[in-house]
Amino acid sequence: MITRDDCRALDERDPLAELRGEFILAKEEIYLDGNSLGPVTRGTQRRVNQVIEHEWAEGLVRSWNAAQWMDAPLKLGDRLAPLIGAHAGEVLVADTLTFLLAKIIGGSLELRPERHVIITDAVNFHSDLYIVAGMARLVGREIVVKTIDRNTLDEHLDEDVALVMLTQVDFRTGEMLDMAGITRAVHEVGALMLWDFAHSTGAVPLDVTSADVDFAAGCGYKYLNGGPGAPAFMYVAPRWQGVLRNPLPGWLGHARPFDFESTYESAPGMRAYVTSSPSVIALGALDGALEVFERTTMAAIREKSLALTDLFIELVEESLPGVFELVTPREHDQRGSQVALRHSNGYGIIQALIERGVTGDFRAPDICRFGFAPLYLRYVDIYDAVQILVEVMSSSAYLDTKYERRLAVT
Amino acid sequence: MITRDDCRALDERDPLAELRGEFILAKEEIYLDGNSLGPVTRGTQRRVNQVIEHEWAEGLVRSWNAAQWMDAPLKLGDRLAPLIGAHAGEVLVADTLTFLLAKIIGGSLELRPERHVIITDAVNFHSDLYIVAGMARLVGREIVVKTIDRNTLDEHLDEDVALVMLTQVDFRTGEMLDMAGITRAVHEVGALMLWDFAHSTGAVPLDVTSADVDFAAGCGYKYLNGGPGAPAFMYVAPRWQGVLRNPLPGWLGHARPFDFESTYESAPGMRAYVTSSPSVIALGALDGALEVFERTTMAAIREKSLALTDLFIELVEESLPGVFELVTPREHDQRGSQVALRHSNGYGIIQALIERGVTGDFRAPDICRFGFAPLYLRYVDIYDAVQILVEVMSSSAYLDTKYERRLAVT
Repeated sequence: MITRDDCRALDERDPLAELRGEFILAKEEIYLDGNSLGPVTRGTQRRVNQVIEHEWAEGLVRSWNAAQWMDAPLKLGDRLAPLIGAHAGEVLVADTLTFLLAKIIGGSLELRPERHVIITDAVNFHSDLYIVAGMARLVGREIVVKTIDRNTLDEHLDEDVALVMLTQVDFRTGEMLDMAGITRAVHEVGALMLWDFAHSTGAVPLDVTSADVDFAAGCGYKYLNGGPGAPAFMYVAPRWQGVLRNPLPGWLGHARPFDFESTYESAPGMRAYVTSSPSVIALGALDGALEVFERTTMAAIREKSLALTDLFIELVEESLPGVFELVTPREHDQRGSQVALRHSNGYGIIQALIERGVTGDFRAPDICRFGFAPLYLRYVDIYDAVQILVEVMSSSAYLDTKYERRLAVT
Repeated sequence: MITRDDCRALDERDPLAELRGEFILAKEEIYLDGNSLGPVTRGTQRRVNQVIEHEWAEGLVRSWNAAQWMDAPLKLGDRLAPLIGAHAGEVLVADTLTFLLAKIIGGSLELRPERHVIITDAVNFHSDLYIVAGMARLVGREIVVKTIDRNTLDEHLDEDVALVMLTQVDFRTGEMLDMAGITRAVHEVGALMLWDFAHSTGAVPLDVTSADVDFAAGCGYKYLNGGPGAPAFMYVAPRWQGVLRNPLPGWLGHARPFDFESTYESAPGMRAYVTSSPSVIALGALDGALEVFERTTMAAIREKSLALTDLFIELVEESLPGVFELVTPREHDQRGSQVALRHSNGYGIIQALIERGVTGDFRAPDICRFGFAPLYLRYVDIYDAVQILVEVMSSSAYLDTKYERRLAVT
């Protein structure tokens, strides 16, 4: 059996251990929900303070130039780019993920005017399903959205397909898809590939360049720790910049925004996909949160992520054999940075855990979801979390009627 | 001639004078650009601090429920509603203005399926022109966007018109339009009316209810002081709620977002127009900024606004007769809270003023624009600003070649 001392020893050898100091987390907090909302970093505190007290309060409107607010969506994109294997000038930070998906979906349909099918995953995140259906309904021509079992993708790929849109790490199960292989298959039939990185960025190594991805988008508030409702990001491969049109144009994407021309003319590069200014304070919060990533590598993060998820799985299976169904793949190359356990009383279990200081979340109908963010989690946190889970399960605390399910973001 | 002492006396009698203390503004700052970006309020500092240090850092993901983040776009809408003459449940705060216009334009076209014309103002703000053209291009059927001289609106109103979209205070000239009269004329031909309040909210009294407005939207960073790129707001008349569809749907506008259903079903009321979560920090910044409005009334703000703009016009015309063309209407009922002066060297004049501590802005091709925010401006600020303008004009400082025009947000 693995002991708490074993875990403490792992923490002592952990090259990322010192980075926990960059996060504001109560000592007793066991936070296995960074895949839903990352915690506050000291970098965020500093940057938000700087934006409000210095750039905004003192610089006022002059900071659009003086503090380069005009360029913030692009500069922040450049800072984020290495986390997805992109280069400077290929990533933009703005809006929220759903709007960025709308822009890419709308633009993509124009790039494949002779094709009428969009393929997505029937168990994709719901906002992705809603916006793809929304855009299909909005655009002029007849578009068919096929929501398929992603394991049967090959059967659906043909020359009617304009766009395939998949989430690289499944938000419920934590399964990680083969980005390069799927992108290749999609390209073979001449379709375009859009990846949603919401559950990938900052958690698993990504390489949009070597995988030859067309488009990608992700959010800023999960493993990136940019704050609740943080701005999102989008990637457009260089070959599509200047070709993919922004179907939701605004003045800050104009080639000459301050000439106030009545006709829209797209700016070059990623600026074309800016509509209007995202909150500069919110951009600052995300900017500050990215600092900590520059003190390590995605390879080191991945190594610890797999060690943490392996440890959690092993401890749960040792301590509670047969109690949960492990939904997340055991294979490393198919696992994101979370572990999903199926249990028919999942909702009550998560509520009981939260009350005892372990925050995970529930995803209907029966998934207990635990996220593992290597930048601030300790191996002892995993050990302690499983001990508390054992206590909850053995005491049947989760059956308490106060845990009857209600609308909740947990 | 009006003297500085006269202005000081006006400040002493000013019932709004004490509210200046709620703003972080350097003593020497003469800020006539609150119509572009309002300054930081102490309310914003407090709220942002509370959101980051308490709700996010301590509450983490649990704050979606515990701190009611889920409801923040609606609660903030309720707080803003009185400023536009709306009631609780009629206003939503989210996204940016251009996206909210996109939602209303897209939804409106479905409400008038047999009509194919959208009318807007040829000199409307450019982002409004871009997004209306963008949406017309995006939607399936043939839509004609007529950009007209707004003074000829009556000639263009007929039964082909689906939607009329106008900005209530012209961003360049400061002219304020007759909201009730125009809305009535638009309704007479069965068209829908969308008002852009970007330059109105917090500066002039508005009453969407008595004017029978269908839809309105505005931004949060001008007279509302919500911060650079602050979330925007939209108003939907009760008769259209549940009828106007959100063409850019996302999971937080779903009737049951946490049931993760694959098919979109709109939430009731204004929640239907939420797509995904705006930055909670940015919502907090705007929330805090609205506090100061609750210590006065829009009638008191309007009274001082007219007094400030009258004073500025009078001082400029006394001190610099014939130098500028006054573009803003002299008639109170046609004037917003800004004064626009035309001069062929407008760009250099504004740059020279900024260097001397008076911040106004330039709007191509030849407008010097000065905004008057009654919550923090003093009558002596107006006096001093005009003295500095006189100095700039008499010394020809504005002709300095360093002021050659470049891309600038000023």
